[in-house]
Amino acid sequence: MREIAVFSGNAHPELAAEICSHLEVPLHPVSIERFSNDCLEVQLQANCRERDVFVIQPLVEPVQENLVELLFMMDAARGASAARITAVMPHFAYARSDKKDAPRISIGGRLVADLLVTAGASRVLAMALHSPQVHGFFSVPVDHLHALRELAAHFRRYDLSNTTVVSPDLGNAKEAVAFARLLGAQVAAGAKQRFTDDRVSINAVIGDVTGRDVIVLDDEIAKGSTVIELLARLRELEPRSIRVACTHGLFSHGALERIGDHEDVDEIVCTNTVPIPEVKQVPKLKVLSIAPAMAEAMRRIHNGESVSALFEPRE
Amino acid sequence: MREIAVFSGNAHPELAAEICSHLEVPLHPVSIERFSNDCLEVQLQANCRERDVFVIQPLVEPVQENLVELLFMMDAARGASAARITAVMPHFAYARSDKKDAPRISIGGRLVADLLVTAGASRVLAMALHSPQVHGFFSVPVDHLHALRELAAHFRRYDLSNTTVVSPDLGNAKEAVAFARLLGAQVAAGAKQRFTDDRVSINAVIGDVTGRDVIVLDDEIAKGSTVIELLARLRELEPRSIRVACTHGLFSHGALERIGDHEDVDEIVCTNTVPIPEVKQVPKLKVLSIAPAMAEAMRRIHNGESVSALFEPRE
Amino acid sequence: MREIAVFSGNAHPELAAEICSHLEVPLHPVSIERFSNDCLEVQLQANCRERDVFVIQPLVEPVQENLVELLFMMDAARGASAARITAVMPHFAYARSDKKDAPRISIGGRLVADLLVTAGASRVLAMALHSPQVHGFFSVPVDHLHALRELAAHFRRYDLSNTTVVSPDLGNAKEAVAFARLLGAQVAAGAKQRFTDDRVSINAVIGDVTGRDVIVLDDEIAKGSTVIELLARLRELEPRSIRVACTHGLFSHGALERIGDHEDVDEIVCTNTVPIPEVKQVPKLKVLSIAPAMAEAMRRIHNGESVSALFEPRE
Amino acid sequence: MREIAVFSGNAHPELAAEICSHLEVPLHPVSIERFSNDCLEVQLQANCRERDVFVIQPLVEPVQENLVELLFMMDAARGASAARITAVMPHFAYARSDKKDAPRISIGGRLVADLLVTAGASRVLAMALHSPQVHGFFSVPVDHLHALRELAAHFRRYDLSNTTVVSPDLGNAKEAVAFARLLGAQVAAGAKQRFTDDRVSINAVIGDVTGRDVIVLDDEIAKGSTVIELLARLRELEPRSIRVACTHGLFSHGALERIGDHEDVDEIVCTNTVPIPEVKQVPKLKVLSIAPAMAEAMRRIHNGESVSALFEPRE
Amino acid sequence: MREIAVFSGNAHPELAAEICSHLEVPLHPVSIERFSNDCLEVQLQANCRERDVFVIQPLVEPVQENLVELLFMMDAARGASAARITAVMPHFAYARSDKKDAPRISIGGRLVADLLVTAGASRVLAMALHSPQVHGFFSVPVDHLHALRELAAHFRRYDLSNTTVVSPDLGNAKEAVAFARLLGAQVAAGAKQRFTDDRVSINAVIGDVTGRDVIVLDDEIAKGSTVIELLARLRELEPRSIRVACTHGLFSHGALERIGDHEDVDEIVCTNTVPIPEVKQVPKLKVLSIAPAMAEAMRRIHNGESVSALFEPRE
Amino acid sequence: MREIAVFSGNAHPELAAEICSHLEVPLHPVSIERFSNDCLEVQLQANCRERDVFVIQPLVEPVQENLVELLFMMDAARGASAARITAVMPHFAYARSDKKDAPRISIGGRLVADLLVTAGASRVLAMALHSPQVHGFFSVPVDHLHALRELAAHFRRYDLSNTTVVSPDLGNAKEAVAFARLLGAQVAAGAKQRFTDDRVSINAVIGDVTGRDVIVLDDEIAKGSTVIELLARLRELEPRSIRVACTHGLFSHGALERIGDHEDVDEIVCTNTVPIPEVKQVPKLKVLSIAPAMAEAMRRIHNGESVSALFEPRE
Repeated sequence: MREIAVFSGNAHPELAAEICSHLEVPLHPVSIERFSNDCLEVQLQANCRERDVFVIQPLVEPVQENLVELLFMMDAARGASAARITAVMPHFAYARSDKKDAPRISIGGRLVADLLVTAGASRVLAMALHSPQVHGFFSVPVDHLHALRELAAHFRRYDLSNTTVVSPDLGNAKEAVAFARLLGAQVAAGAKQRFTDDRVSINAVIGDVTGRDVIVLDDEIAKGSTVIELLARLRELEPRSIRVACTHGLFSHGALERIGDHEDVDEIVCTNTVPIPEVKQVPKLKVLSIAPAMAEAMRRIHNGESVSALFEPRE
Repeated sequence: MREIAVFSGNAHPELAAEICSHLEVPLHPVSIERFSNDCLEVQLQANCRERDVFVIQPLVEPVQENLVELLFMMDAARGASAARITAVMPHFAYARSDKKDAPRISIGGRLVADLLVTAGASRVLAMALHSPQVHGFFSVPVDHLHALRELAAHFRRYDLSNTTVVSPDLGNAKEAVAFARLLGAQVAAGAKQRFTDDRVSINAVIGDVTGRDVIVLDDEIAKGSTVIELLARLRELEPRSIRVACTHGLFSHGALERIGDHEDVDEIVCTNTVPIPEVKQVPKLKVLSIAPAMAEAMRRIHNGESVSALFEPRE
Repeated sequence: MREIAVFSGNAHPELAAEICSHLEVPLHPVSIERFSNDCLEVQLQANCRERDVFVIQPLVEPVQENLVELLFMMDAARGASAARITAVMPHFAYARSDKKDAPRISIGGRLVADLLVTAGASRVLAMALHSPQVHGFFSVPVDHLHALRELAAHFRRYDLSNTTVVSPDLGNAKEAVAFARLLGAQVAAGAKQRFTDDRVSINAVIGDVTGRDVIVLDDEIAKGSTVIELLARLRELEPRSIRVACTHGLFSHGALERIGDHEDVDEIVCTNTVPIPEVKQVPKLKVLSIAPAMAEAMRRIHNGESVSALFEPRE
Repeated sequence: MREIAVFSGNAHPELAAEICSHLEVPLHPVSIERFSNDCLEVQLQANCRERDVFVIQPLVEPVQENLVELLFMMDAARGASAARITAVMPHFAYARSDKKDAPRISIGGRLVADLLVTAGASRVLAMALHSPQVHGFFSVPVDHLHALRELAAHFRRYDLSNTTVVSPDLGNAKEAVAFARLLGAQVAAGAKQRFTDDRVSINAVIGDVTGRDVIVLDDEIAKGSTVIELLARLRELEPRSIRVACTHGLFSHGALERIGDHEDVDEIVCTNTVPIPEVKQVPKLKVLSIAPAMAEAMRRIHNGESVSALFEPRE
Repeated sequence: MREIAVFSGNAHPELAAEICSHLEVPLHPVSIERFSNDCLEVQLQANCRERDVFVIQPLVEPVQENLVELLFMMDAARGASAARITAVMPHFAYARSDKKDAPRISIGGRLVADLLVTAGASRVLAMALHSPQVHGFFSVPVDHLHALRELAAHFRRYDLSNTTVVSPDLGNAKEAVAFARLLGAQVAAGAKQRFTDDRVSINAVIGDVTGRDVIVLDDEIAKGSTVIELLARLRELEPRSIRVACTHGLFSHGALERIGDHEDVDEIVCTNTVPIPEVKQVPKLKVLSIAPAMAEAMRRIHNGESVSALFEPRE
Repeated sequence: MREIAVFSGNAHPELAAEICSHLEVPLHPVSIERFSNDCLEVQLQANCRERDVFVIQPLVEPVQENLVELLFMMDAARGASAARITAVMPHFAYARSDKKDAPRISIGGRLVADLLVTAGASRVLAMALHSPQVHGFFSVPVDHLHALRELAAHFRRYDLSNTTVVSPDLGNAKEAVAFARLLGAQVAAGAKQRFTDDRVSINAVIGDVTGRDVIVLDDEIAKGSTVIELLARLRELEPRSIRVACTHGLFSHGALERIGDHEDVDEIVCTNTVPIPEVKQVPKLKVLSIAPAMAEAMRRIHNGESVSALFEPRE
């Protein structure tokens, strides 16, 4: 079979290295030069010819730089006669631009999906897309993973007999339900009430949390405003303990400190789909690695084995 | 400017006729023949050359027949040198197939969007798509209308001073909020709790409904199971009156009778995006026409005037 | 090499099963659900990843349902990372919509060919297309089989020393000529004279049929009007015996009975490219299976062996 | 409205000039240079910006040179911002390459149709395509004219009371039938019998020709072998007079002389879809101009008026 | 005719405003929001429907941000039903990435051209592309301007009777020759000799410069290393005066100061295709505006008048 | 692995045969028929199914015939289910049409690149393209070889200790520099001065040639005017010996004789990328074969080995 060839841009080389280590293949070097006119030149430094090329690049800050880097890496692989090019995006930030809720805006998720295909993507490997419809923005096959197994493995080290998983958003609680099932736990959710068009606040928690060990679960935490509001509601209901978990730990605007400062929060758990600099980290933070899962998915994609068999919630 | 030419397939000719009457243009005839091998032949019976062609066809039962008819009408218009072809789909049924929640299924909404473009659609005029992300499935411009103005005009004939709009699904309550704002009413919602993966039930109503005049609002009612469950919850909370409203009144499996049989339901209101045969109708049913709105949108599309100015909620 | 994976829609599962039996591969199950809004959801129930997928679906009644099913199955296979997708259409009904003989109609054969490619078809396997030009409507490779070997094998059981193959249409007698050559027989044809634009009648039979064993051969028989008219002309010329043969036995509008009722017709022979329900069948009917030929073609396509070497008449 | 701009390559500038004269627009000059390495450079020498550009070029000998010229002219017009580009091909020679009757050949008609679109054709105006299915090879709108009106006008100068139109090929006699109807004449046809795969001969004439004034009608005459064979059969049946007519008078290999030498042929009539050099012409030849018809079609295309209304046989 | 609608991103709003002032049309506002995850949302704040939209955005630092902004603006215009979208790029920085001079790199100019078309560009208006072949990277029409008229008008204020235009690169001296002709001046050029693969130095000036008034002309000056080296060679040949001119004044790495510090340089002239911050400017710098030329080109594109008539050097 | 299948058109069958001999694979026959209407029919006479097909055809005179032949061969291979189709063009003549230096011309290199892809080219193998930017005209991967190794091997048989490589065009001297490095020689170049737009003459030779052994190197020699002019300049500088070398020896308009007649030219060296008929050859001419290099590149392409590793100058 065609060999695998893995490359990484500047977005998250640590994750790429870890994935390659699990795959037991080298992470091939990439030379990224910036000309005096601020244009990029990207050179893949290993033979791509007839290879099964994977380019690992989450769309994290600086998003535009990382996106263009990714486009150039894929175009270079195509020009170098790659047999197949998989864009591996552990975090696809533009998934949140998924609808036209104002006139004369671009549906960014769709546009970026089209740009990726124009640049040569034969397929996409993504993780925890913000809404499942974004899958349909791509005209190439997408494998869509979740991090619930990793999160579940972490929490199983605790006594889970008295546990409730709480979704901040009842309307988007599918992941929390699946997670609770994995843990044998109960489920609850904050109910967002929209008083006006642009103000949303959580004014109720549906389900039983009083005296229980609570795990708040969200797909991503950026500024963390929703989680902090939920914590206030939860506190009124006197749970026994609180842990906070998410897949994508963006933690912008000091979110880690703002959540960590809550004394009743025992732990903050996320994965390494996006890089979290040492300097931002707080003692309560636990970062789980999705590298083994990504590596396994890439191995299965390369070998033509079923990916859904392992990762899809419905199987 | 290029003239407008409007055609309709077999899906909902009454609506097409009404739209044309508002536009003060003829509804051109279409000959649809079925050969002995069950293949269709569609002939547009008016000159399309350099015309601004609109083909009106909601994807209603029989969906596959109506879809193929629509594809053939658009291809015929393209071959006949239409300057522009707008697929007018007051109900885009495949919008509900918007994600890949099982392995090896098609994301039908995206596939059908691509088929429409392959057959010649230059643009799409749709109404109340099931999820706003479906807009992003189309590679051509989409104008996306809502029926809230029509519904609001209807309810304004009542005393609305004590009214609460109730969404059956708190997670999808955006339309209800917008509608309540149009009416100057309060808003409430049923909270769906997922106990298992495939069983969802409404176990709470968030917001104030006791003693109030309730308007239940959903985007579409097919079998009506969700609405009927919500009615049970509402009844426990003793509202003063109940009315039920939706945009797409599919009313399959005897839904109209099953809802109408509830004595505390004073009225069922829907629009004519899908045809409702005489025989299915019940006394409590009130069907509002979206023909004036569709006609106005088509007029603006034809003349290059802003559509969002009129219909987008955010303006 | 990549494994083969074969699926079938609802159009003709018996044929698919028979083909798979010859290929000695399983016919993988497909789940086809119809939602309450009449939309289809199709799930392929076996791993397609990097497989060489074949989807068997003749476009038979109900054509539109079967077409959309086929489109969904192919799109699902593509989304599930199939390496290659072959649409196997033993009967491509829209091949008869091959020209624009009226203004503002669609050339359906071309449109459907484009839809198939949009939905993911990498290639097509078809049988006895109505006109050979339809091959050119497809932008992907087409393998085009004939059923003459099967028909010939059947007739070789008779004494063929006094046989004439008769084509109902002299202008389209190529298949009859090839068939006569296979059998070592003579050839004759009915001459269609067009008196007016829409009335065609056979007013002569060119070639020697008197006192001979006649085999009438057509590519397909639907209503059977042409064959019945030819039988009248033949009878006047007093052949020794008459047999009727075709590839696609659609037999609509009681055609089987209408032909079978002719006492001088000894046998009606067709193949199983389209399903013929038990209930329609008559004693004189003999259905030959093209499953071995289709299976052999699929085996050769899968293995990269020449298909034309076996089936093309000119080799 | 956008202005019209007409250009012609080297294939048939006389026809282009005549068309422009009827349209009362200038035929803009085109500079066609051949470099020392035999590459072409084509420059359109009039502003194309936002113009409705027509490029007139039948695919006549040298076909490959004329085809590439046409492709370059269209690409130049596109690059020069033409609003619309119509390839006007009074003779589309590759229409005869319309099926794959041998393995590993190209279906040339489809390939050339795709090349024309790649080079920028927005639409096509063609005349008397060899088979009507070729229309379906184009992915852009095609207007397809016939020359029957011109031929009919010519023959109406004679007494037609005793006339029979004879098609050399019974299987392809549609045009002859339509022509006979235009003239109020009878129709007959030569019956081609295929004895072997590659030998076809006319062994009968179906219909009444004895003592009648015969007009032999074909779509094109190249080597003329079929017509000459038909003349032999006709002679045996003793018609009163014989005239020969066709749309495309290619007349290769001395066909004009070979037909003209038949004493019983009174006249040979063709149109000017392809150029006929002075030197090839014989006294019996009459060349009719299709320039007025082409000009009228171009005027209607430009103005958005129905073309089929005038030229389609079925209307 | 359709109205014009002009928008500008963040790259060079001053130039856009100046162009609009010349066109006497408003520069419509654009709202550009950056989400907490660093994704962009761009909203065009004027009706685009059926408008002739121009988006002005040179690809200047930060190039990747400006490129993505441009892509989003065009996609938004397309989704908002613009009739035509012209990407106006006074500086197309990626034009320098025009060849694959190392293995496994992207030809950036081609990739970015394709991205622009994917995002909705119907056409491009560019200025002084680094190599003329880059024009061929675009699959949509390109209008390609030069700034020589503006530069010539500036220098005509001096006595030009003793002037020589010097190109730093003899191999790329076409512009200098054209410029000299415009001024009625002589031409000379520095000869670049490549001693090693990556070291190029100017070791000769071909042509007469001693005692003459020299104008050094280049298409762009970034770091300015080439110009500074040429100045050293020129100095040895004792010209009477030296002026330096270019179209794109990128002036990175203190280039302006480094050139301006040369006492024998009397003046540095560039245009405003890229913004030059106040703070970078030096007394010897003279910035000419290409806004009138861009505006005139846009006016002609909008009106369908010939652009080449005005700006192409060969006419 | 899939087998290789090599075909050749009429342009240069000798080269194709030689390449196949090096590859130790058969050169499969191609039947090329010309119909009486001057249309081509091309049949590949070996199984292409799932094969790795290479079609060898330099674009030499007659260019248009050879181009169309190439397009038909590729389309036939695609229709015959080739797994991959590589257009092997040792000379891509249209590379010289690489810019739009006059209004309303086609950029022929880009158009022909697009036509090749339309006809089915999956990739391209080219040699010594006139400008490196032409690589970017192709939307499929291109492998781009040089003939410098072959030329160097030839000249190493001489004493090279006193050698200077002279490029006729200083602005395009990259190849000469690389060649000099390969030989350990010095480099010089003729300086083209443009006095007017259309007259270019060499008025200087930069670098040391007096008393040295000169090798004039150009990428191609057609009419040879530039070389002959350079010879005149060189003669004035009294080199010890002169040899002339190029990759593409088109030698039109008696160029071989005109150069060979110069007594001080000891040798003319070219390669066999284009065929040179016996009759044109002169005693001083030495034709080197690039067949081994082309064969090695094809072998590596087929096997997925790095091509750049061997042939790119920068590695």
